[in-house]
Amino acid sequence: MRFTKGHGTENDFVLVPDLDARLNLDADLTRRLADRHAGIGGDGVIRVVPTESATEEAVRSQAGRARWFMDYRNADGSTAEMCGNGTRVFASYLRREGLETSDEFEIATRAGIKGIRFEGDVVATNMGQWRFVDEAKAVAEGFDSLVLLRDRPLSEDPWSALSVDMGNPHTVVALPESVDLATLDLFHVPEVRPLPPQGTNVEFVRVMGPGHIAMRVHERGVGETQSCGTGVCAAALATSFWAGNPEPKEDWTVDVPGGRLRVRGLPNHEVELAGPAALVADGTIDLSALA
Amino acid sequence: MRFTKGHGTENDFVLVPDLDARLNLDADLTRRLADRHAGIGGDGVIRVVPTESATEEAVRSQAGRARWFMDYRNADGSTAEMCGNGTRVFASYLRREGLETSDEFEIATRAGIKGIRFEGDVVATNMGQWRFVDEAKAVAEGFDSLVLLRDRPLSEDPWSALSVDMGNPHTVVALPESVDLATLDLFHVPEVRPLPPQGTNVEFVRVMGPGHIAMRVHERGVGETQSCGTGVCAAALATSFWAGNPEPKEDWTVDVPGGRLRVRGLPNHEVELAGPAALVADGTIDLSALA
Repeated sequence: MRFTKGHGTENDFVLVPDLDARLNLDADLTRRLADRHAGIGGDGVIRVVPTESATEEAVRSQAGRARWFMDYRNADGSTAEMCGNGTRVFASYLRREGLETSDEFEIATRAGIKGIRFEGDVVATNMGQWRFVDEAKAVAEGFDSLVLLRDRPLSEDPWSALSVDMGNPHTVVALPESVDLATLDLFHVPEVRPLPPQGTNVEFVRVMGPGHIAMRVHERGVGETQSCGTGVCAAALATSFWAGNPEPKEDWTVDVPGGRLRVRGLPNHEVELAGPAALVADGTIDLSALA
Repeated sequence: MRFTKGHGTENDFVLVPDLDARLNLDADLTRRLADRHAGIGGDGVIRVVPTESATEEAVRSQAGRARWFMDYRNADGSTAEMCGNGTRVFASYLRREGLETSDEFEIATRAGIKGIRFEGDVVATNMGQWRFVDEAKAVAEGFDSLVLLRDRPLSEDPWSALSVDMGNPHTVVALPESVDLATLDLFHVPEVRPLPPQGTNVEFVRVMGPGHIAMRVHERGVGETQSCGTGVCAAALATSFWAGNPEPKEDWTVDVPGGRLRVRGLPNHEVELAGPAALVADGTIDLSALA
């Protein structure tokens, strides 16, 4: 079984080409491939398959615009709608293999068509529409929830936070000047009040300068990660809002532990995420040797 | 650059063949290869090189008995003397590639010649001599140190432990019946009193039956791992000692989070570790894409 290992700002993936749509990538095989000790290792597994061969009707209907479907699964075997950093790796693979040849094309995902644009080595993805979960409260108060970390002294006030819907839920915290971003204990799950019914991803943001933030992210059900594409967008959008620009007029530079990304507001309340993608290794897997 | 990914009881390695001894595997390249997000990922990197081409004179002197040198480096780039689980993966690679063809052969390591014996799919390694750090105290009292875990209630007594020198330092704790091995918090570094000057690896052992233990290990400078070859030997040797057999007369079965191993006492105060090895994937790395 062939594979390619790649990453976008250290959000890493096992890519599996399935150009003839013959592969049965079930939850068990996904877990074994993504296992960091007994398998190849990755935050997720991406099957590269023709859109017209997708099992889901909603994906097949995208075949007129997007030739290739990014069949994304989390390391635990569950299917996911999409992954922002994964789109850049997927698109870079399509170009390297000659499956797409132009600088702009569209890919199919479970969250619908995503537009891709290459700017040299940088790959920009239209991440689609976003919204504040409670627009009225955001406008009136700037915040709609509170976040606490377990290891902070009990006497400290909880931090104010703002909820952003990127298709998945995000809660963005603007850190006070006195708090060191690098030493925050994100080993334990942050406590969010009120907690959204499906849980939430939590971004901790430090403003570095005009249009420039640094952040760390605790991903729902995963823990801290090196990068989270939708979280990077949510952090930039919330910070822009607090700075007086609910529709970002300028590009935002966002530093995550795994690297640097660019967030740009698009018309129609959409947002674009741009950054690097690396295809590190190619090879074959001995399925009989997988745990 | 070619590579193979393999593991022994989920202690995993990037193997790099260097049959012509042309590769400059320095600390930086090792770290980049072992990086689990931006590289291939592994607990260590093993260069496969002819013993006669080794840089170190002490290794080259083994060339008369061992054709191949296991040049082992930790994920942080530092060189290491040897790695018990790594020897099985290294030996399996030599056999698969036809570099060694018999069931018994020797390999060169920085800790000297190691004897390898294949029993079907099981690989047995002579791990060399062991000793109790304080033999007199071990015989008189059965223990020579105390271990505490940070998250245990302060009212609890610390656990008694025994120090075993396997070439590297180990401290073995026999867990009381009332303590659940699976839920021990090994995220924080165990406190050992007195702490050996170079630190120590700590094994937490539960007796499962005659000649059968389960254990978890906190590796010095690393944290909890799925398996540790020398730690498995130290745990079996200490438990055998407490059971009245300072020179183990029977085989010990040792369950670690990553699988099952066998420990056997050999003449001359030596000990053998036997278990599985898996070669999971083979491929090529794009060095220009490594972080």
